[in-house]
Amino acid sequence: MKIKVFTAGGTIDKIYREERGTLNFSFGKQAIKEMGEHKLKLNMDYDIERLLAKDSLEMNDTDRELIKEACQDSVAKKILITHGTDTMIETARVLSSIKGKAIILTGASQPYRFRESDAEFNIGVAFGALNILNDGVYIAMNGRVYEWDKCQKTSDGQFVEK
Amino acid sequence: MKIKVFTAGGTIDKIYREERGTLNFSFGKQAIKEMGEHKLKLNMDYDIERLLAKDSLEMNDTDRELIKEACQDSVAKKILITHGTDTMIETARVLSSIKGKAIILTGASQPYRFRESDAEFNIGVAFGALNILNDGVYIAMNGRVYEWDKCQKTSDGQFVEK
Amino acid sequence: MKIKVFTAGGTIDKIYREERGTLNFSFGKQAIKEMGEHKLKLNMDYDIERLLAKDSLEMNDTDRELIKEACQDSVAKKILITHGTDTMIETARVLSSIKGKAIILTGASQPYRFRESDAEFNIGVAFGALNILNDGVYIAMNGRVYEWDKCQKTSDGQFVEK
Amino acid sequence: MKIKVFTAGGTIDKIYREERGTLNFSFGKQAIKEMGEHKLKLNMDYDIERLLAKDSLEMNDTDRELIKEACQDSVAKKILITHGTDTMIETARVLSSIKGKAIILTGASQPYRFRESDAEFNIGVAFGALNILNDGVYIAMNGRVYEWDKCQKTSDGQFVEK
Repeated sequence: MKIKVFTAGGTIDKIYREERGTLNFSFGKQAIKEMGEHKLKLNMDYDIERLLAKDSLEMNDTDRELIKEACQDSVAKKILITHGTDTMIETARVLSSIKGKAIILTGASQPYRFRESDAEFNIGVAFGALNILNDGVYIAMNGRVYEWDKCQKTSDGQFVEK
Repeated sequence: MKIKVFTAGGTIDKIYREERGTLNFSFGKQAIKEMGEHKLKLNMDYDIERLLAKDSLEMNDTDRELIKEACQDSVAKKILITHGTDTMIETARVLSSIKGKAIILTGASQPYRFRESDAEFNIGVAFGALNILNDGVYIAMNGRVYEWDKCQKTSDGQFVEK
Repeated sequence: MKIKVFTAGGTIDKIYREERGTLNFSFGKQAIKEMGEHKLKLNMDYDIERLLAKDSLEMNDTDRELIKEACQDSVAKKILITHGTDTMIETARVLSSIKGKAIILTGASQPYRFRESDAEFNIGVAFGALNILNDGVYIAMNGRVYEWDKCQKTSDGQFVEK
Repeated sequence: MKIKVFTAGGTIDKIYREERGTLNFSFGKQAIKEMGEHKLKLNMDYDIERLLAKDSLEMNDTDRELIKEACQDSVAKKILITHGTDTMIETARVLSSIKGKAIILTGASQPYRFRESDAEFNIGVAFGALNILNDGVYIAMNGRVYEWDKCQKTSDGQFVEK
């Protein structure tokens, strides 16, 4: 099994940078890269590539085209994208015209750097789904795997069925 | 979505108990219970029930029948079992005669209590698969979802295709 | 041995609260309370009281008087204060007129909620020092115990000798 | 400030090695080395040297002489030793004839690799004490700094006053 992983930024990859009087987040080593080196014990080929390092609210059409092209250009049939949760569904919509690939987007509600982050689990859900799915664009959040156009993010941050 | 979780013991649930001169493991609060309370942010009904608290090498036929009956008796169509890895496949074989349910077994190569455990990710993989699978008995380990009779555990602890 | 712990806020106690598009910090359960319940295995009487929950840059004279009065009013001879690092030394100055007590201030450069926080270690340094010190106002940061008027915080966040 | 750190093994440094059917501990990268690289943000010179990697119940007179010689031969005036807790006091006794140095022994009741280990805090307590102490042999455990001959380890694993 081979998975291509693209990272686009979002809460999952935020690191903490102290500056006088403020807690500032920036982007550092990708969460999934750090997990893969230390914990996941994966039995598969996978490859991680950073496409963007942005809050998903700051992503624009050009960014989404970039992600789409990367997915199309990759030889991989199974693609995982870590992404901010706020516009995850918008990116999924742009990707939905891609055929013959299973693409799943996931992220986190707390950065991986926090002890109590949901990042590790969410990445697991996405991998579990990619083992089985062959075609389509999906969202893996809150323990669920949703077809991209069947879910929405509520104001309290959960992804639920639409 | 509704998932029934049974816990059977195994490395994933080991806690540490200090005694003079030795490090002893025993079983404490189940890993998945602790994760669920603090991290997973699940959007589903799930219910956790402890069936056993054993090293899987110490499990016998009676134990496996107990698990089988619990799976059969549950109204749930989607079942997750956390289990020791050494005899996970043997338990899966006993469960394989159950029809009309998706049953997935997972565990960990390091106890959840360790900072670098694979437990959280593995539980994620199992949840991800259960979202999609409807029937059959599966093993979720090393980022992979295997049909129970298509995998084996190698001497270095990895689950690979048979 | 008896220690009174006052918490005043600061980075050490920050928790994370997600809101649309931003990562916001607020104050939750105190770091030292959480550590004490789960990890520290302390053999001493100690008691934790929250005085403030503020970024230390937002603390004013009234806040510092409040801390001073709390220290004076406590029967404890050994006092630990967790505090933001930006104005830790200013608060120490206000406390420096208190006689007959050992008062030590500590904090963290990353919130305790981060996996790689220095909070636990810093609290340890402060406890270690309080075992021995009988009188005076001290800063415990970066593995060091400084008399409050012999140290300064550099622009890169380290406490060094003045 | 300069500290020499010697590591002798003990629970604090145990890592986990999976073998069929058993959880086995062995010694890996020293806890204090890992902490120092990732978390402690120390403002001091320190240097870590492994002398032994043993359960302290397996240490013999030769081992203790080795530690004593290492302490004597070091130019450092402040020495921290991480050590198993079972015979920490016996080693301290052997070291007690060394004059003109502050030597402090610490360890942990759970390996540093566990999420809820007391290792980080205990190392902090030892550092805090070494900032102030100039002479003598001490034990730092359970938030306390004891003169080596004024404490004992209880059957439930706590260090208390004798």
